[in-house]
Amino acid sequence: MPPFEVPEGDPFGPHNLPYGVFSPAGSQERTVGVRLGDHVLDAGAAAHALGSPYAALLARPTLNPLLAAGRTAWSDVRRALTAWVTVPSHRETVAPFLHPLSSVTLHLPFEVADYVDFYASENHARNVGQIFRPDAADSLTPNWKHLPIGYHGRAGTVVVSGTDVVRPSGQRKAPGDAAPVFGPSVRLDIEAEVGFVVGAPSPLGRPVPLADFREHVFGLCLLNDWSARDIQAWEYVPLGPFLGKSFATSVSAWITPLDALEEARVAPPERTHPLLPYLDDSQEEPGGYDLRISVAVNGHVVSEPPFSTMYWTAAQQLAHMTVNGASLRTGDLYGSGTVSGPEPAQRGSLLELTWNGRDPLELPDGKRTFLEDGDVVTLSAWAPGPDGARVGLGEVTGRIVAG
Amino acid sequence: MPPFEVPEGDPFGPHNLPYGVFSPAGSQERTVGVRLGDHVLDAGAAAHALGSPYAALLARPTLNPLLAAGRTAWSDVRRALTAWVTVPSHRETVAPFLHPLSSVTLHLPFEVADYVDFYASENHARNVGQIFRPDAADSLTPNWKHLPIGYHGRAGTVVVSGTDVVRPSGQRKAPGDAAPVFGPSVRLDIEAEVGFVVGAPSPLGRPVPLADFREHVFGLCLLNDWSARDIQAWEYVPLGPFLGKSFATSVSAWITPLDALEEARVAPPERTHPLLPYLDDSQEEPGGYDLRISVAVNGHVVSEPPFSTMYWTAAQQLAHMTVNGASLRTGDLYGSGTVSGPEPAQRGSLLELTWNGRDPLELPDGKRTFLEDGDVVTLSAWAPGPDGARVGLGEVTGRIVAG
Repeated sequence: MPPFEVPEGDPFGPHNLPYGVFSPAGSQERTVGVRLGDHVLDAGAAAHALGSPYAALLARPTLNPLLAAGRTAWSDVRRALTAWVTVPSHRETVAPFLHPLSSVTLHLPFEVADYVDFYASENHARNVGQIFRPDAADSLTPNWKHLPIGYHGRAGTVVVSGTDVVRPSGQRKAPGDAAPVFGPSVRLDIEAEVGFVVGAPSPLGRPVPLADFREHVFGLCLLNDWSARDIQAWEYVPLGPFLGKSFATSVSAWITPLDALEEARVAPPERTHPLLPYLDDSQEEPGGYDLRISVAVNGHVVSEPPFSTMYWTAAQQLAHMTVNGASLRTGDLYGSGTVSGPEPAQRGSLLELTWNGRDPLELPDGKRTFLEDGDVVTLSAWAPGPDGARVGLGEVTGRIVAG
Repeated sequence: MPPFEVPEGDPFGPHNLPYGVFSPAGSQERTVGVRLGDHVLDAGAAAHALGSPYAALLARPTLNPLLAAGRTAWSDVRRALTAWVTVPSHRETVAPFLHPLSSVTLHLPFEVADYVDFYASENHARNVGQIFRPDAADSLTPNWKHLPIGYHGRAGTVVVSGTDVVRPSGQRKAPGDAAPVFGPSVRLDIEAEVGFVVGAPSPLGRPVPLADFREHVFGLCLLNDWSARDIQAWEYVPLGPFLGKSFATSVSAWITPLDALEEARVAPPERTHPLLPYLDDSQEEPGGYDLRISVAVNGHVVSEPPFSTMYWTAAQQLAHMTVNGASLRTGDLYGSGTVSGPEPAQRGSLLELTWNGRDPLELPDGKRTFLEDGDVVTLSAWAPGPDGARVGLGEVTGRIVAG
């Protein structure tokens, strides 16, 4: 089928057009690509051929220049790309710049500046609280409903989908043990999340208000926050997760621009506690996104977490992250935190799905509590698009290899 | 006095030669400089004039290319620089590239990749434990003697000495309050630390052993981890510090190469707990550094923390940070954690110096519990050098301005 004729119902049709960075077959050079069905458009080359003023912005080895260009440029580029792949008179010009997806190498699409991870699913936070603090009066910590809890993660170990994940070693100590032992993690887990990519920076000392979210955030991706639960449990008091998380964080190769997700916007769950003004979104545009995530282990779907259930929105997270005056940089990435819905089959981590190993999952290739070497985990997702179409998010996949 | 004739006893003599990045008077261009007494040598220009093969490495707007070049290059460049500023036959050639320190603008000397902050002073950790958990049986958490506790901080808000620090706003809630309130921090504090700068990177999945510390770490600097204690107290459970720390971290403009600190190396305190093999430094070269830090508020010295008392060394911190396979990048920065000695006048934070505000400090300009707007905090330090000389560390200073 010719590349332009994306089949009816394809979630990567011209209504989607996510951005990535690729090398064509046989080349080491990286350049910005836009996904259309099963093809990748070399965006810079197409722009050059069509005399577009955005050619220089797109013929680059990372998305960062486009991210830095700001919302007006994002809209203009998207409008131009849409025309190039839909207007018949452009086809002859554009066709040579379409590469079959299967022939290209996909790279980490942007240089990550700071990486922050949040904890914004009430279902996830309650599950974790019940598992680790069964005697607590409330499974949520007292601050949970007042602010989006977050922490900084390691930006240098964010890897693109498809990168193998080496099982980390570290210290662990069960409560009854006299001293910690060292070895490969035996409780290696996933966290199904959505990552938000900051484009336009902000200056030090000036908070970004809720209403400016879409001036700064370019788009989103799927994110798997691999977690070694045994390492994490021993290390995290009092300063939070560190080596239990820092060995790898996988992101999809495709960044979906927020402009492709207009139809997916939904109100977040009803707020049960009054919010301080800088977080109060009751008068703002809907801040949630209706993303339907699917988690598969070795090709077998184990969970379908609904992103629409997240208590804290990405706009609230951005406002909170900067309310102390912290600046934003192009390439900042922040994760939503594990997405878990209210149903057992909607939980975004094996910790929750197996209730900390108590209830193993039955997979076609055997039982699982946590991940085995060789396991392949894949997150995929779609969102409602225009006229009943689906907007596909790029998948994020990774295979566990022995350390 | 001619620039080459650094006075006897000057802690920035030719035995020191720390690296920075500066712009000469009237210029916006940034280039690598080396401090000699009260002057800055334009290292790239001098190298070019002398036909050095390192000219291209030094005539750059950041230290990152030099950092990435690795230990052999670091030694070669240092040997060359030492010759240029000490061998009389070079003087005529080099003299035009010396700028009075007072005439130049100093910049953040390197692009920070990831920023990690540790918690390696036993005195500090015990003080904090006693202040915040007075009923605990042990003021240290159970993991403290088994691993260097650390967490990731915000790399994008690392600023150079001299940058004003805007008082952060945020949420705080006293235990008796019904709900949090929002406003400027009323418990703004400092943390006197030493920062270590990673030069040579390491690949994902491969830990860096203790013995390879000096293959990867280029040098150190003073670091002030500004901390909003009220914001931190409310936010940090269960994922650690976030907005209470992320508004600003100040580093000195000068990075002292480890090669200038050979005489300052000392054994760390005796280990009270057996260490797992990857942290066991009993057979390694001495991993501590005898740095004498001084903390001044508005010019008045309030503390003199001795870095030699730190329980965990920088080599142990690096081994721990990578033991899970996390990679290193050129420009990674990690802080020691607050340096506090055993004596009350050796504590590296106002939290400890005033015992959480209970015992105000008497300064010439009034009492202090935490920082007031307008306060200027300056950390300085020196280390023993060759033949009784002192090796000065570049100071780190910052003024609090209202948010």
